[in-house]
Amino acid sequence: MPVNAPVLMPALPVPGFRIGTASCGVKSADLKGKRTDLTMIVADVDCHAAGTFTQNRLRAACVDLGEQTIKQNGAQIRAIVANSGNANAGTGIREEEWAQMMISTAAKALNISSDQVLSASTGVIGTPFPIDRVMQGVEEAAASETDWMQAANAIRTTDTYAKWASRRVGEYTITGIAKGSGMIHPNMATMLGFIATDAPLSQDQLQSMIKRVVNLSFNSISVDGDTSTNDTVYLLSSGLGLGHEPLQDMFEFEVMLTELCIELAQMIVRDGEGVSKFVTINVEGAESADDARHVARTIAISPLVKTAFAGSDANWGRIVAAAGNAGINFEADKISLRCDGVVMMENGNLHADYRDEDGMAVFAQPEFSITLNLGMGDASARVWTGDFTHEYITINAEYRT
Amino acid sequence: MPVNAPVLMPALPVPGFRIGTASCGVKSADLKGKRTDLTMIVADVDCHAAGTFTQNRLRAACVDLGEQTIKQNGAQIRAIVANSGNANAGTGIREEEWAQMMISTAAKALNISSDQVLSASTGVIGTPFPIDRVMQGVEEAAASETDWMQAANAIRTTDTYAKWASRRVGEYTITGIAKGSGMIHPNMATMLGFIATDAPLSQDQLQSMIKRVVNLSFNSISVDGDTSTNDTVYLLSSGLGLGHEPLQDMFEFEVMLTELCIELAQMIVRDGEGVSKFVTINVEGAESADDARHVARTIAISPLVKTAFAGSDANWGRIVAAAGNAGINFEADKISLRCDGVVMMENGNLHADYRDEDGMAVFAQPEFSITLNLGMGDASARVWTGDFTHEYITINAEYRT
Repeated sequence: MPVNAPVLMPALPVPGFRIGTASCGVKSADLKGKRTDLTMIVADVDCHAAGTFTQNRLRAACVDLGEQTIKQNGAQIRAIVANSGNANAGTGIREEEWAQMMISTAAKALNISSDQVLSASTGVIGTPFPIDRVMQGVEEAAASETDWMQAANAIRTTDTYAKWASRRVGEYTITGIAKGSGMIHPNMATMLGFIATDAPLSQDQLQSMIKRVVNLSFNSISVDGDTSTNDTVYLLSSGLGLGHEPLQDMFEFEVMLTELCIELAQMIVRDGEGVSKFVTINVEGAESADDARHVARTIAISPLVKTAFAGSDANWGRIVAAAGNAGINFEADKISLRCDGVVMMENGNLHADYRDEDGMAVFAQPEFSITLNLGMGDASARVWTGDFTHEYITINAEYRT
Repeated sequence: MPVNAPVLMPALPVPGFRIGTASCGVKSADLKGKRTDLTMIVADVDCHAAGTFTQNRLRAACVDLGEQTIKQNGAQIRAIVANSGNANAGTGIREEEWAQMMISTAAKALNISSDQVLSASTGVIGTPFPIDRVMQGVEEAAASETDWMQAANAIRTTDTYAKWASRRVGEYTITGIAKGSGMIHPNMATMLGFIATDAPLSQDQLQSMIKRVVNLSFNSISVDGDTSTNDTVYLLSSGLGLGHEPLQDMFEFEVMLTELCIELAQMIVRDGEGVSKFVTINVEGAESADDARHVARTIAISPLVKTAFAGSDANWGRIVAAAGNAGINFEADKISLRCDGVVMMENGNLHADYRDEDGMAVFAQPEFSITLNLGMGDASARVWTGDFTHEYITINAEYRT
């Protein structure tokens, strides 16, 4: 059960983009027609595109191809084609060929060039990719016409709900979809995010923006190093092609894009495998943002901290011990810690007014925050994480995924 | 339930050392007389001493004091005093004073100087240290006379069995005790190891040896960064004082010491919280030993790998994805993977003869090995880890520790 899954407003269509989906039984032939597992985001004009890709050494071929395509032809992207049900990762010598066939099938169906198509796959690792069914699905999706919500649905794997979000910036629209429900790193081998806008942005603007934005959103959720074989975020801008006015305020656009991506990233945490708590970890008073971030992430991935969350145990000892484990310079007698509004520690000592019941009451909520101040400087960072429950073990130990 | 807990031979007494224990109710007064929780290892002569200490930023005062004492007076150590039941860590302004009082009480009782005493505490973090009961226990322990097995018993916290090991090297004896049963990092805030020998070793020899030995043993078990607030290993040599012959073969001594420490370290993994599998992770073919070690540890701490172990799921995808997450340079098409004797992958492809049933049969055992060859060089490393079970969640989420 997701934690406080948001009730989503309908996704806004983005001028210049159309969506197609298909049900081709990627995971197994008998699922064909039963659930959609292929989607295409198609632009009417050449788009500027930027991407961020998994840092895992073992990247799926589609990730390598996508990075290459963006590098070589990132000003003329026309489509993203994506499937769930099979990650086409760790599939050996035919992996790249299969990824290329998926792309070329899309290009042919849309009457564009293969180097205008980005692809993504998500699902089981190491199972041969059912390329025939996928190619059929690509053709079907190219001929269909649906909406962003259906696209968000088609890229789900273990996600319990489809994830989308929209924003308006002046006369422009941003709409994004995402998938991912792994808690540590995405179990089904992928966190995917596809975002499109009709606002006019240069490729350089997109590329520098996506790094900052992803850092504050998708890379700030609790994922052990954040990388799996297929993680990818794509950002497309059709604006130039549509002849809109230049953006009045680039900063406003970036803020809105960041908000949208944080919303999607939080949806992933809320839908984390077996997650019963949604926790915001704030680290303040660090010497640098990198330090703050590293401490926040170390707390967020600590199994002892996560099990304390699960047990509604305001175990501040585990939190500060995890922070101490981050390898960052700080001093015990300068730290302070609070959960929501309750001050637990100050200057390294338990706060005189702190009562265990108050901490326990905060930790018993489905949603709360932890704020650790290191007392070393002015930098801060924020990450979102879930807890570690029996349900997580059940999902990951008792069923093969 | 520990995994294949070894049946231990009696610990050998070490000439020149005597052991005392006491039951002083450190954790709570009503446990006084019910379980031993204080121990002293006392040497008849000044010992050479070496130590390794937690890398956690938030170290308990006793760790700081111990490191300082070794630095300033490491050639004249006479005693180790240790308690379980309370880590005296995160206890604020009185922490150091309490640690010093424990040491000075021991020094007084033994009629030696405070800078000849090393101390260690393990147990809950952040609870005021019951210094009066501890001081009484120290006096009692100083007056008692028991054996290494009883000392091993007195330092237990959540350990389900006492851990000791002995070796003979020529005419000399090495005996060590250890505690620790946390799976990730020691939950009760400590991994402790105390080792004594009557072999004559200089302080420099001890200090350089302990680093190598601990690296291959206590630092090669699956612990997330390996550090908690109180982790300490002490190595004492009384040899010089006893007038023995010089060691004939220093290398043989180091091998035996390494064996002993690996035996103790493995006992800790076997007794890991909720552990139902004992898994050896070998990484071969790395460019450097550091690379190999880093990959092995990344696999060993991956929750997805650990839950796959728990589920007896030969999920090679999770293992190689975890390896890919280590940030070490290697190439997908060079790796090979086997579990025990079963070859799973070769040159990045699933091995033609590999059958899932064979892998599953290996993973179903309580004890097996995973060997990943990176195909990049000649360096290797080995770590030992456990699985991630419902029992782990129960221990850490459902009870406050």
